[in-house]
Amino acid sequence: MNKELLDPSYMRRAIELALTAKGHTNPNPLVGAVIVKDGRVIGEGCHQKYGDLHAERNAIKSLNESAEGATIYVTLEPCCHYGKQPPCTLAIVEAGISRVVIGSRDPNPLVSGKGTAYLREHGIEVIEDYLRDECDEINPVFFHYISRKEPYVALKYAMTADGRIATDKGSSKWITGESARSYVHELRSTYTGILAGIGTVLADDPLLTCRIPGGRNPVRIVMDSHLNIPLDCNLVKTADQGTVIVACLDEYTKGNDQISKVEKLKSLGVQVLGISPDSKGEHICVKDLLKKLGNIQIDGILVEGGKHINAAFLSAGKVNKIYTFVGNKIVGGKGAFTPVDEMGIEEMKDSVELSNPKVRTFDTDILIEYDVENLRMIRAK
Amino acid sequence: MNKELLDPSYMRRAIELALTAKGHTNPNPLVGAVIVKDGRVIGEGCHQKYGDLHAERNAIKSLNESAEGATIYVTLEPCCHYGKQPPCTLAIVEAGISRVVIGSRDPNPLVSGKGTAYLREHGIEVIEDYLRDECDEINPVFFHYISRKEPYVALKYAMTADGRIATDKGSSKWITGESARSYVHELRSTYTGILAGIGTVLADDPLLTCRIPGGRNPVRIVMDSHLNIPLDCNLVKTADQGTVIVACLDEYTKGNDQISKVEKLKSLGVQVLGISPDSKGEHICVKDLLKKLGNIQIDGILVEGGKHINAAFLSAGKVNKIYTFVGNKIVGGKGAFTPVDEMGIEEMKDSVELSNPKVRTFDTDILIEYDVENLRMIRAK
Repeated sequence: MNKELLDPSYMRRAIELALTAKGHTNPNPLVGAVIVKDGRVIGEGCHQKYGDLHAERNAIKSLNESAEGATIYVTLEPCCHYGKQPPCTLAIVEAGISRVVIGSRDPNPLVSGKGTAYLREHGIEVIEDYLRDECDEINPVFFHYISRKEPYVALKYAMTADGRIATDKGSSKWITGESARSYVHELRSTYTGILAGIGTVLADDPLLTCRIPGGRNPVRIVMDSHLNIPLDCNLVKTADQGTVIVACLDEYTKGNDQISKVEKLKSLGVQVLGISPDSKGEHICVKDLLKKLGNIQIDGILVEGGKHINAAFLSAGKVNKIYTFVGNKIVGGKGAFTPVDEMGIEEMKDSVELSNPKVRTFDTDILIEYDVENLRMIRAK
Repeated sequence: MNKELLDPSYMRRAIELALTAKGHTNPNPLVGAVIVKDGRVIGEGCHQKYGDLHAERNAIKSLNESAEGATIYVTLEPCCHYGKQPPCTLAIVEAGISRVVIGSRDPNPLVSGKGTAYLREHGIEVIEDYLRDECDEINPVFFHYISRKEPYVALKYAMTADGRIATDKGSSKWITGESARSYVHELRSTYTGILAGIGTVLADDPLLTCRIPGGRNPVRIVMDSHLNIPLDCNLVKTADQGTVIVACLDEYTKGNDQISKVEKLKSLGVQVLGISPDSKGEHICVKDLLKKLGNIQIDGILVEGGKHINAAFLSAGKVNKIYTFVGNKIVGGKGAFTPVDEMGIEEMKDSVELSNPKVRTFDTDILIEYDVENLRMIRAK
């Protein structure tokens, strides 16, 4: 039995390692591992990229001495099944590690509890739930997607200090300064998909790429119920350089009305996704959209919509996180644009409750990051 | 000549002492003083209350040994004129202090530079502008009022994370939680006046008092252009317990229309202030209101209005600070109430710029405190 005292700083180092791969492991989780022996770190690693070695194997690979009798701290329960990589539990046993300290439990039904059982069967001491909350916190998208098979949804909007996303006349450039806007590009690189409305495409003709060096470009998704996307817009023109999905009412993908446009978009490399109509029949149904995005492995999306799209996702009860940027400006206005359209809430007590606000400052702009659902509700029970 | 090295921690202690009297010295400034000799604090004090001893005299009074050859750190240039108290410069000379370290310069034309000159004439070494920015920061209201003779204006509003101060139906209870609301009562105790609109009085029948133990109640001011205040509302009923000022169009205080109501209010202890109309002639003019409040020694007001009052003060260019509370809620709504009404701003680049955001968290609520004017523009040149 390993008698070394447990030390949270090793697990925190494993968390730190895990986070270095943010944006590159989806739909796999971020995982970090640290191997400790006689009060020294003798190996460490993380899961760096989808399809590559898992954290435990990278940590073992980094060893310059025997791990016989060592402790491994790993942020997530080691896998015990053959996927893209052979099981990590096997590698741990082979390395002679005598104790495994686990943060998060694996919500994947193929793995949950089985990795732990396998290790114990091989005489390894296993400590579970060690800094579990901190470890869970690094993988909200993974926990959400693995249990629901639909993407984790984060809304992002920037408003003035008096709650406007544009003036009466629609002017919105710029509410926030350069450093806040550059952080949005970082966010884009951490979600698998980015979603905008056709209104934004028609008004701004955006590229929706991530403009930071080394950043991963997200899959670009346009909510375009009536297939109004111009064939010569920037998104369509760059569809060969990165996935573009146009989500429209499924009648257009089946009927004859727009079928030639659908075919044309496809020939230009755009994926067209037919979605059921919402209850009013005019726009695509958010729930069906998410189900279909989930089917094609999109585990999380950043929604950069306007008030209609924000209201649609919130009304469907399908928002997990909100990034509220508050710019240092006041514009006022009788009919100036606000972040969320009608949701039928009449009493303040019936509002959508946000939790766990985290504040960051970008020069004179403030970002408040909220959770909409409590992570505990969606993570592995 | 005093050869002890200057040490910023003594001035910061003086700032700390000054702040303990927050809300009790108006229209005088907050001032703190620390007397140091041979590397030890031998005396300290602050200006505790309007009319009482000044900080320097309180620090001298606290001495248990001679201050001969000591250094005094004082957050504001010592006064040299006879006001409610004899000049502090005299006390400093008499105490045998050999060096005076000053933070803020005194913007009062009766004092500015004269205190320093008097001390130097008496052979005392004077060091000016020591941590001046930090010292200036504690007296924005004083600096504003002394040079302009009209109150410093702070707007306060609470909005949801989607920028609403009420739902479509007017429901606004509560946007923020208890600890944020309790902080508003602290704010009330630090401003000489609190201002609300007649709409709030008619809807909520508020007391507008400061509900914290030991807090000072502000002068209560109602913007009531057409003198619609009910004679039996809580404000009027408690006018004998704390000043209530009703500001209405000056025609009502002169003509016959409402003169009996004006007389009645006065007989109930309410002050009625006649104000010129604004350019449209319908409501009272913010600039004239502030001039008249300044005339009666009101050096600062906390405006707890709705979108019309906020827009009126902002449009008049008369806002110095904004307290934006962001509650952890989303309500949406087509016509839901926003913090600021029409100000005629069409382009985002023409917005009112806010500066120097300071963030505080109250449970799940966020307070962003902004300056609207740069303090440097209004303090002593």
